[in-house]
Amino acid sequence: MSLSVNHLLGIKDLTQADILHIFEMAKQFKEVINRPIKKVPSLRDITIANVFFENSTRTRISFELAQKRLSADVVNFSASNSSVSKGETLLDTVNNILAMKVDMIVMRHSSAGAPHFLAKHINAAIVNAGDGTHEHPTQALLDTFSIKEKLGEVAGKKVAIIGDISHSRVALSNIFALQKLGAEVMLCGMPTLIPKFINQLGVKVSYNLRETLEWCDVANVLRIQLERQDVKNIPSLREYSLYYGINKELLDSLNKEIVIMHPGPINRGVELDSDVADSDHSIILNQVENGVAIRMAVLYLLAEKIKPKSVTN
Amino acid sequence: MSLSVNHLLGIKDLTQADILHIFEMAKQFKEVINRPIKKVPSLRDITIANVFFENSTRTRISFELAQKRLSADVVNFSASNSSVSKGETLLDTVNNILAMKVDMIVMRHSSAGAPHFLAKHINAAIVNAGDGTHEHPTQALLDTFSIKEKLGEVAGKKVAIIGDISHSRVALSNIFALQKLGAEVMLCGMPTLIPKFINQLGVKVSYNLRETLEWCDVANVLRIQLERQDVKNIPSLREYSLYYGINKELLDSLNKEIVIMHPGPINRGVELDSDVADSDHSIILNQVENGVAIRMAVLYLLAEKIKPKSVTN
Amino acid sequence: MSLSVNHLLGIKDLTQADILHIFEMAKQFKEVINRPIKKVPSLRDITIANVFFENSTRTRISFELAQKRLSADVVNFSASNSSVSKGETLLDTVNNILAMKVDMIVMRHSSAGAPHFLAKHINAAIVNAGDGTHEHPTQALLDTFSIKEKLGEVAGKKVAIIGDISHSRVALSNIFALQKLGAEVMLCGMPTLIPKFINQLGVKVSYNLRETLEWCDVANVLRIQLERQDVKNIPSLREYSLYYGINKELLDSLNKEIVIMHPGPINRGVELDSDVADSDHSIILNQVENGVAIRMAVLYLLAEKIKPKSVTN
Repeated sequence: MSLSVNHLLGIKDLTQADILHIFEMAKQFKEVINRPIKKVPSLRDITIANVFFENSTRTRISFELAQKRLSADVVNFSASNSSVSKGETLLDTVNNILAMKVDMIVMRHSSAGAPHFLAKHINAAIVNAGDGTHEHPTQALLDTFSIKEKLGEVAGKKVAIIGDISHSRVALSNIFALQKLGAEVMLCGMPTLIPKFINQLGVKVSYNLRETLEWCDVANVLRIQLERQDVKNIPSLREYSLYYGINKELLDSLNKEIVIMHPGPINRGVELDSDVADSDHSIILNQVENGVAIRMAVLYLLAEKIKPKSVTN
Repeated sequence: MSLSVNHLLGIKDLTQADILHIFEMAKQFKEVINRPIKKVPSLRDITIANVFFENSTRTRISFELAQKRLSADVVNFSASNSSVSKGETLLDTVNNILAMKVDMIVMRHSSAGAPHFLAKHINAAIVNAGDGTHEHPTQALLDTFSIKEKLGEVAGKKVAIIGDISHSRVALSNIFALQKLGAEVMLCGMPTLIPKFINQLGVKVSYNLRETLEWCDVANVLRIQLERQDVKNIPSLREYSLYYGINKELLDSLNKEIVIMHPGPINRGVELDSDVADSDHSIILNQVENGVAIRMAVLYLLAEKIKPKSVTN
Repeated sequence: MSLSVNHLLGIKDLTQADILHIFEMAKQFKEVINRPIKKVPSLRDITIANVFFENSTRTRISFELAQKRLSADVVNFSASNSSVSKGETLLDTVNNILAMKVDMIVMRHSSAGAPHFLAKHINAAIVNAGDGTHEHPTQALLDTFSIKEKLGEVAGKKVAIIGDISHSRVALSNIFALQKLGAEVMLCGMPTLIPKFINQLGVKVSYNLRETLEWCDVANVLRIQLERQDVKNIPSLREYSLYYGINKELLDSLNKEIVIMHPGPINRGVELDSDVADSDHSIILNQVENGVAIRMAVLYLLAEKIKPKSVTN
């Protein structure tokens, strides 16, 4: 069985079967990275370029470790010190990298749709590592994989995504993934941080944190993207925290157990208090660990499509 | 047979036999990088430091891929975050790197002659990856290799180098390489962008683009180095493009076929129109592909000279 | 035999036996890196993250070469383009890296005690690559190893540390290492550059360079950390050089041989004249070479403690 797509541009393009197949492979790779010998030779004939037009140390390191554990050859290209600043087009930049016999491109770009545009014009597998505030598919895969791992199943679960939905590249991909796997989704946050178009996606919306937590099995808490708040949409961090920050007292008052997730980096004391982030209900570090396994699975399955014979099992 | 030099500082120092020997090796390595398994173990006991005192993502990635496909160990040193800013001399910086048992230095520096200075004082092979506006030998090797690949021969061909000759590190190396291989060279550009000393090199000079194109078999079009124009030598990009930009209409009016080359990154719509850059006559992406093979050949042949026994064939 | 510690946070925590054991291993690894094949497979199942919150190209490259020659997997994390700038805590940053199944952390941080804090809270081996102006243990190990190599013994030797003691991360670690190995230590510099607490460490202090040189067998000359002089503690570089700079004339006038050391990068003509730095008495480049061997030894011995079985001898 192979994926229905040649690129991972967004969760929107995946079938439920694709997602479950990626989960199956990720489960196997998770065993690999927990062995004393954390490496497999699967992609030793594949060259991958990590092309990051925006900084993202965390995501880049996760991809890089995934690539190294698959024994791929890796080159890193960051836009800050590149020919991009010399006025070259995105397509020329990527075509140049590909002419050097690179097989896959992992790309982070500030513009929504940049990887989709590339996928139409180039002959290589593309993995979207975040395009603007649009999709961040590997994050949604690792999030839903972590829910499945914790609760046994995603179907039928009630998942709340709480916080700054407007400036997040995590929210949209998570909504698609959760819905394809049969979960119910509620978004919760200040009205100014939830875009209007989201109503068309078949999700519930709440502006009340307690109401949301009483409803959900899982709370995926997004960080306040302070660096993206070009208009002051939030009154103050202190006030935000007062209304939308999750602390232990609030959780204890609910008389139920909620799984706590966060894509990181955490603003401790703002959207999550430390005794919540570090509690037994938190699976935040599991998300990080699963991220490497999910990325290994995605890279492996896409490589299989471009080089069916040279991928070693 | 081995090279007549221990470093690749410039094309000026190479014999015709050296160049042809590099071409022969590059041809073999090009076959390697087009196989499913793109790697050879040739330099697995060689450590190479890429020491870049100026940014050049494109050239650095090409060298890095060449090094990885030869199985060399690679460390990257960029000047922006280095002890250079702490007032250390160039010689101390490089001697420190070499004391860590590095065998080869690939160096980009803003000062003409920096790699030549080092070569006199240190005991390691040096590859000049561009010294100011002086030489950029691997670029000239990949350019002439690409001409030979396209036209079967370099000798007797008429090659025009068009554009900003003054601010280019590509022009001088190309002139030397083309002349050593028996090609005729014409430079074409605005009078302010062609240095006077160039007349001593035995090349033709023209200020008329149509006249140049009517003469040549190959047009190597340089980019306007906008970031290097400290004095305003060009009236405006629009005017430059009007007189020296190459478009399809102009090429079609010539009733002959011209091979189009460009070292990249392209300013589309300035020195080259898109329908020229992407046409069948353009070998721009072949240049990029050949760049990796040429650099593998150069590194391999220089390594052979420092470690005759440990280089595996 | 194994080390008495699980981390290398500072020389203060090491026993004399630890230091001698590291020296013994470093001697073996120095033979390795002087062979044509400079690599051993010892740490091929270990993943190491170099987490640098301050720039230090020289130290990072030395660690990186040590790691590659031990066949470890390496990821580099630099703070400038990281989630640290997004307000994440140090502990969260490091826990995230570790959740990706990283076995060891090599860390440079601007705050004294940062690695000690981490070591208490995380489950991985930490190597301190410099914490503020506190300790820089691998530098002290390579310095004392180089003295032993040159003079046969450290015990009983008279070692002067000369220069900007206050702003140095090298001085304190060297004092501890030299004392544990039985050497006598004298500090020499301008009164404003020698902190008062140092008197409690059992070292001699002198403000007179000639007096110091007449006393010592070894002069470890620190660089003036120009970039750290927030208050003007020194009258001028010219005046500093006049009173505390070491030139050949001064050395020749002593009628004895002194071993000259410097942790680099050298300010030539300020703390050391070129004919001293490059003389036969100077072991400055030996220090650099020994740095790689010492770091291999430290990484190897710490890895042995976390993964006793998977470390291949």
